Amino acid sequence: MSQYPLLERIESPSDLRRLERSELPALADELRAFLLESVSKTGGHLSSNLGTVELSIALHYIYDTPDDRIVWDVGHQTYGHKILTGRREAMAGLRRAGGISGFPRRCESEYDTFGTAHSSTSISAALGMAVAARDKGEKRQSIAVIGDGAMSAGMAFEALNNAGELDGIDMLVILNDNEMSISPPVGAMTRILARMLSGRTYNAARRAGEKVLGLAPPMLEFARKVEEHVIGLVTPGTLFEEFGFHYYGPIDGHDLDALIPMLHNLRRLPGLQFLHVVTRKGHGYKLAEADPILYHGVSQFEPEAGIAAGKGGGKLTYTKVFGDWLCDMAAEDERLVAITPAMREGSGLVRFAEEYPRRYHDVGIAEQHAVTFAAGLACEGRKPVVAIYSTFLQRAYDQLIHDVALQNLPVVFALDRAGLVGADGATHHGAFDLSYLTCIPNMVVMAPADENECRQMLYTAYCHDGPTAVRYPRGGGMKVEPVQKMATLPIGKAEVRRSGKRIALLAFGNLLAPALTAGDALDATVVNMRFVKPLDAECIQALAADHDLIVTLEDNVVIGGAGSEVARVLETLNTRPRLLRLGLPDAFVDHGEQAQLLSEAGLDAAGILASIEKLNQDNS
Amino acid sequence: MSQYPLLERIESPSDLRRLERSELPALADELRAFLLESVSKTGGHLSSNLGTVELSIALHYIYDTPDDRIVWDVGHQTYGHKILTGRREAMAGLRRAGGISGFPRRCESEYDTFGTAHSSTSISAALGMAVAARDKGEKRQSIAVIGDGAMSAGMAFEALNNAGELDGIDMLVILNDNEMSISPPVGAMTRILARMLSGRTYNAARRAGEKVLGLAPPMLEFARKVEEHVIGLVTPGTLFEEFGFHYYGPIDGHDLDALIPMLHNLRRLPGLQFLHVVTRKGHGYKLAEADPILYHGVSQFEPEAGIAAGKGGGKLTYTKVFGDWLCDMAAEDERLVAITPAMREGSGLVRFAEEYPRRYHDVGIAEQHAVTFAAGLACEGRKPVVAIYSTFLQRAYDQLIHDVALQNLPVVFALDRAGLVGADGATHHGAFDLSYLTCIPNMVVMAPADENECRQMLYTAYCHDGPTAVRYPRGGGMKVEPVQKMATLPIGKAEVRRSGKRIALLAFGNLLAPALTAGDALDATVVNMRFVKPLDAECIQALAADHDLIVTLEDNVVIGGAGSEVARVLETLNTRPRLLRLGLPDAFVDHGEQAQLLSEAGLDAAGILASIEKLNQDNS
Repeated sequence: MSQYPLLERIESPSDLRRLERSELPALADELRAFLLESVSKTGGHLSSNLGTVELSIALHYIYDTPDDRIVWDVGHQTYGHKILTGRREAMAGLRRAGGISGFPRRCESEYDTFGTAHSSTSISAALGMAVAARDKGEKRQSIAVIGDGAMSAGMAFEALNNAGELDGIDMLVILNDNEMSISPPVGAMTRILARMLSGRTYNAARRAGEKVLGLAPPMLEFARKVEEHVIGLVTPGTLFEEFGFHYYGPIDGHDLDALIPMLHNLRRLPGLQFLHVVTRKGHGYKLAEADPILYHGVSQFEPEAGIAAGKGGGKLTYTKVFGDWLCDMAAEDERLVAITPAMREGSGLVRFAEEYPRRYHDVGIAEQHAVTFAAGLACEGRKPVVAIYSTFLQRAYDQLIHDVALQNLPVVFALDRAGLVGADGATHHGAFDLSYLTCIPNMVVMAPADENECRQMLYTAYCHDGPTAVRYPRGGGMKVEPVQKMATLPIGKAEVRRSGKRIALLAFGNLLAPALTAGDALDATVVNMRFVKPLDAECIQALAADHDLIVTLEDNVVIGGAGSEVARVLETLNTRPRLLRLGLPDAFVDHGEQAQLLSEAGLDAAGILASIEKLNQDNS
Repeated sequence: MSQYPLLERIESPSDLRRLERSELPALADELRAFLLESVSKTGGHLSSNLGTVELSIALHYIYDTPDDRIVWDVGHQTYGHKILTGRREAMAGLRRAGGISGFPRRCESEYDTFGTAHSSTSISAALGMAVAARDKGEKRQSIAVIGDGAMSAGMAFEALNNAGELDGIDMLVILNDNEMSISPPVGAMTRILARMLSGRTYNAARRAGEKVLGLAPPMLEFARKVEEHVIGLVTPGTLFEEFGFHYYGPIDGHDLDALIPMLHNLRRLPGLQFLHVVTRKGHGYKLAEADPILYHGVSQFEPEAGIAAGKGGGKLTYTKVFGDWLCDMAAEDERLVAITPAMREGSGLVRFAEEYPRRYHDVGIAEQHAVTFAAGLACEGRKPVVAIYSTFLQRAYDQLIHDVALQNLPVVFALDRAGLVGADGATHHGAFDLSYLTCIPNMVVMAPADENECRQMLYTAYCHDGPTAVRYPRGGGMKVEPVQKMATLPIGKAEVRRSGKRIALLAFGNLLAPALTAGDALDATVVNMRFVKPLDAECIQALAADHDLIVTLEDNVVIGGAGSEVARVLETLNTRPRLLRLGLPDAFVDHGEQAQLLSEAGLDAAGILASIEKLNQDNS
């Protein structure tokens, strides 16, 4: 007999809605077991998905999806949703090339109403949908499901603030309060939510009344009545009711007997509703409950045995190189301050946070604030290092321009996940940073070719009196063990790694490795450019004098990328070699294996050779 | 005798601090009169500066500036601050080339602790300074002065949220509540603040108590005591106290007898303090009080007579072309929805807001939300038009990439203030949009050469099924009256405007006018490129076949700008003409006259001719 008798009957939410309510707990057990089995084979996000099993079932059971719109914030908790909406079998290809995404995607299913992956967009998107429904006279619910971490971002606040202004909007915001974003939650909002849960405010008010009034029973009774009235203003709802929402909860998000009737009632209510649901990441799988961060994003593992502790921790990754450098640098210079927008683990800051708690600032999911906060620190002679993913820096682009670069402040941006990241796909590929950074005056932008160079570049950036970015890819590189001693690199100087003939390959960062392989095959000159800005114009000019073809190589989109300024250097010359710019295409790249994606973009050695071959053919 | 006897004695705040407290009201009168006289001659921001006269005096009187740090949010209210900190005479050159800036700038004065101009950065910056002071063991206050409009931005919320997390921080946030950002304030936050002012919450709680308890006097007395305790949780402070701040106020920000003692006391308090000050924009100048929006940003005018109503309203500007198009388009298509992040006047939305209130969304100073909200609307078949300044779109870069472009949603971005804006300077020049937009897949980016083309491009964008941006400069162009009838332009097609020899000038947008002049002088071919993305590669290839020199012209930085993709088209050819890319330099451009700045960047006809001449000389 099948291990998943109920689950296998569900090809779409309408099948789900045919189940009896009494069957739902058993379905939840099956869904949880299926998730664990599936994710342990494919890898992916685990803790968050185990936490939303009941919520996914309850939402699709009560609401008329896809006509009612559910927007899942971040979207790494939507595996249950995917399984219930016709993608159970597709889970076997999760996050793999050609398979389904680890996030909601509009092109993947009509149930994926809005593509997410970066945090805190759901209320804005759902509000847009709700306004559209109102204006079109369509009766439907728009639902945003947002975590407590995501709620701390300014953008969520902006959306709440705007929602409170509008008339005739039917919208439900579900706060999925699991007290954990990827890093542990921080900020005052956390405390506010915690207090809501503990009921401390309520109790404090009550005790105050008792104290003032003594214990004279009839007076106390009167006072209680005052209290009850006033209490509406001070208990959980306060903050959200200030924004015009009706607040309900908190309720246990794993209790279907609480969830189902609550949603059933909410569905019929017009206006702005806010439901506070408490869930536990990893719920139902003891190992993940005990260490939800370890089980946040997993590779293949044995569910029975669990993930081996510390596994992979010692691997030489750029992230680790950064984390080690940061600790070493902090030991040398007490001015160093590190800032992360809620990515302690992903950015390699765990050790730093332990060793230098006072100089460690996890500011929450708040990229805009992170960057301007760094600028404020830099004004006062501190040395801020902002550890941020390439795509998340897009969230603070104006702050980088306006507050850091314009004021020429020495802030170091350590940009992890630059280039193609692999399984997380289009939303996480750091495909644009060279374009959006090099156009900004005062910026110095570096791309290390190997792990040791990354360390030395971070040091170089740190020593530079102005804004700098060091951008490095996910995972490891050429496995060059970092040299402990730090030395600055000359700003704007490239390094010729191989002298050859006719063809010069100019590699930026990560692409030096395939460039060296291709260079051997072609007997070409190979240069490790190191600096995307300022470019080594002298070097390029020298190469132009004795090469027929210059090829630029970068894991950034070609448009506006490193190659475009190489082109400009060549334009100034009277005798110009031909230029071929290779990089990422002008298209969003899907998820898949990192190496495979690079190969498909023509950025491995074979691809480089093929592009050059094709150029030669076209010319002949 | 001087009109400003007290003011003229103040060369720095230490002079101010030598005045008797009793002299301050007279000083305020002088400062206000000086401001009015000065700004009426130079132009600049008026209403906001008249509103902060007393606050500027009080802050510099009580705090030990520049050792204590004042960060002025937005900074268009700092003229009084500038006058009190040694720049009284420099006010004659305000916002002019070589003169002082209309915003705080670190390079201008040690009293300008942080450069501002874009909204809502002050708390983040001041928090950075406060953390630095703590860590360095320096005893000083860090003060953020932020308006109620700026407070509605997510970034301010992020900073408050982070502040509440930190220990040992001395910081004062002054909420300058004047109930007006540039556009009238919107959003739930406004209501919350208004309620604080009206004391409605307080009164409601009190009335409830009276009602429950009847009017039995002794019980009422007891109940009042309960109330007083509970009241701390529900009166003005609530929201900010939730974030760990001690809330004081609201107090009258024009009453020095309230301000001075309050600041005197606050200065000695450790921890996070929040002072709610109520001021009135335009205070003390009747005409500005009556119409603070008209007097928000002014040109030269006679203080006695005031600004002639409707003056300049009929002028043909790109902003007006957009506003008219929007209304015409809305009349034709009920799906159209317009969104502005608090820039109704600047973006030309006044008429639309009046005529289509239901389809008009001023979301507050909330660029991130604005863009994702638009994406949500687009998902449901609405046709959102986001009216936003070029530099403010930098605030929503990730949302543009992640929520709009990646999902290929038909959102129209109407980018005003592209290129050099003039007096507002570096923080407002739209110098980067072509670089940061063209690198994003799916984007269609247009730049109109004249007013009619702007209208037709907006229509073209509106009809296109994908994300589009039309970017146009501040002010007017070639004065080509828009043709009422709308017709789409073929996507990606350029228009040859002049056939010439040897040289081809490829003009993007605004620079067609000088290109035509230069073209006549050189007998050069002149092309109105129209589309920055997709480029008209065919046209470029055809030009390459019979021209020796191609010159690209854009009012965007050259790095990653329109010219860089022209270069790439040329790179594919076997016979390549020389390329010269002209545009803005890799430097932040200061304030000054718009035409003058363009000329200094070599982007007027004379500059274009000179650059070509220089190239010819270098080659000969």
